[in-house]
Amino acid sequence: MSRIVSFSRYGGPEVLEFKNIEVAAPAANEVRLAVKAIGLNRAESMWRSGNYVEEVKLPARLGYEVSGVVESVGASVTHVKVGDVVSTVPSFSMNDYGMYGELVLAPAHAVVKHSEPISFEDAVAIWNVFITPYAAFTQGNRLSPGQTVLITAASSGVGVGAIQIANALGAVPIALTRTNAKREALLELGAAHVIATDEQDVAAEVARITNGKGADLVFDSVGGPLFPKLIEATAAGGNVLVYGELSTDVTPLPMLTVLAKRITIHGFNLFETTTTPELQRAAVKFILDGVASGELKTVIAQRFAFNDIVEAHRVLEKNQHLGRLVVNV
Amino acid sequence: MSRIVSFSRYGGPEVLEFKNIEVAAPAANEVRLAVKAIGLNRAESMWRSGNYVEEVKLPARLGYEVSGVVESVGASVTHVKVGDVVSTVPSFSMNDYGMYGELVLAPAHAVVKHSEPISFEDAVAIWNVFITPYAAFTQGNRLSPGQTVLITAASSGVGVGAIQIANALGAVPIALTRTNAKREALLELGAAHVIATDEQDVAAEVARITNGKGADLVFDSVGGPLFPKLIEATAAGGNVLVYGELSTDVTPLPMLTVLAKRITIHGFNLFETTTTPELQRAAVKFILDGVASGELKTVIAQRFAFNDIVEAHRVLEKNQHLGRLVVNV
Repeated sequence: MSRIVSFSRYGGPEVLEFKNIEVAAPAANEVRLAVKAIGLNRAESMWRSGNYVEEVKLPARLGYEVSGVVESVGASVTHVKVGDVVSTVPSFSMNDYGMYGELVLAPAHAVVKHSEPISFEDAVAIWNVFITPYAAFTQGNRLSPGQTVLITAASSGVGVGAIQIANALGAVPIALTRTNAKREALLELGAAHVIATDEQDVAAEVARITNGKGADLVFDSVGGPLFPKLIEATAAGGNVLVYGELSTDVTPLPMLTVLAKRITIHGFNLFETTTTPELQRAAVKFILDGVASGELKTVIAQRFAFNDIVEAHRVLEKNQHLGRLVVNV
Repeated sequence: MSRIVSFSRYGGPEVLEFKNIEVAAPAANEVRLAVKAIGLNRAESMWRSGNYVEEVKLPARLGYEVSGVVESVGASVTHVKVGDVVSTVPSFSMNDYGMYGELVLAPAHAVVKHSEPISFEDAVAIWNVFITPYAAFTQGNRLSPGQTVLITAASSGVGVGAIQIANALGAVPIALTRTNAKREALLELGAAHVIATDEQDVAAEVARITNGKGADLVFDSVGGPLFPKLIEATAAGGNVLVYGELSTDVTPLPMLTVLAKRITIHGFNLFETTTTPELQRAAVKFILDGVASGELKTVIAQRFAFNDIVEAHRVLEKNQHLGRLVVNV
């Protein structure tokens, strides 16, 4: 028997419920894991509330990233064996697999083996957090050394990852956060500059920092009323990567500015990278090397017990934590 | 003395006024033209009303595209001589030059010589109309043979040009127009399909036409409430080119769909092409060859006398004409 989390209707964190289920033996291309830690992604709360980009088949499970120990493997699985320390990369539909559970099945392609020592908590604070900005910044060479990148929701898990990836690529991360409350923490994490979007004029600040040029790249997961300000702050010929929409307001597209400055807006998600073996391999290597060398640091905002999954989702949705929320199982 | 058009405050067509001025001798890199015809661009009415992408220095002149005869040339000008039939390509700021006039100065780089016979009216119905889609579709190889392209405001000058350029490139143009009034005319001009956006479900029609794939490319100058429907109709991995914003409503950017489908939105204007000599040369050659061979056809919606410039701007703003509005001088 395994205790797992599921929901049978859309709603707030309270719709999450525990169930005890029998977990099937792994199919040929599956791995069964004894879960030790879960890393929470904002996408999971959007999934739970019915606002995700993919339609949910109810009743539904959820969860992309866990770490743990391999409990059994399917007949075709060769890259991990029973007893290995592993974690899962978001690379599947949550209609097919949900990782919130004590014992879970995962598709083999999502399971990464940790050969170097890493804590279970750290192992769930690296994939979405670092793969998203790594892939977004390196595909199409969108961020070169010395270039500036505006990072919205900078204190989110991916925001904190983006600051570090930008630095690792030799670029200049400018962190955008709503208030000045996390200014020092973001500078500590490597932000070259911090702009408090509720308190400062984004375009004016970016112009000041870039000597009037504007930002070469914008990495946005917020949208809403902030978006036109980001476009105003973008350099002529610059790029804007959108990978989320935390705002519940309409996101206005200022078309005339976009065309006058020949700005390119790229919709981005990490699935192309995580489901293409050679792309996943390159990203995983870059990140594990970075974590091993200390260049990439995990940031854990808060820890929860598995019993407190509802409370953990409440904190997740407040968007006020700095770094990753981790649930220990 | 030359009769020219200018305006000293922003407003409707009625702010346009005639003036008689002395036209200076051309500077070293200028050409002075006796104007025979003016092609009206929607950008000029946005300029007049203060809604253009560039700030207007009042009092202001206006006009990008005219045809006529070279009256005198500056000392450094070698590519045209007095008496040549020429036309002007939009490639300058209207704060520096305005082509609405009997005798006007133009920067030499904007002046194209017509060696093959062409009517003055046709010569003002080819540059913005064909360069915009030509450059937009060919830069970055954004439209390949067999691919589908949605063209909004399909009966506008550039819309009609885009249908023909798409066909010339071997692609499949799908014309979007508000009602069915111009369906037959658009099919006649080469549209493979016509969708009436006020009467049909855009995404459903595009899905039907493309067997569920969606459009490979969208070429939009409208924005506003239509824009989310265009994004819905775009194929996964597709491109959207925005080159205008005729709508006066907010253009909502559906970020989650954009990121889920990894759509790229490119702000586009023709100035990079028209101000870069080798790019301008390639576009001009493609277009003059196409016009000469009959593959590209000018479409003149309505003709006006120079005296009726205010009325011409009224018609321009109604967005109900099919093709180009031409003013004979």
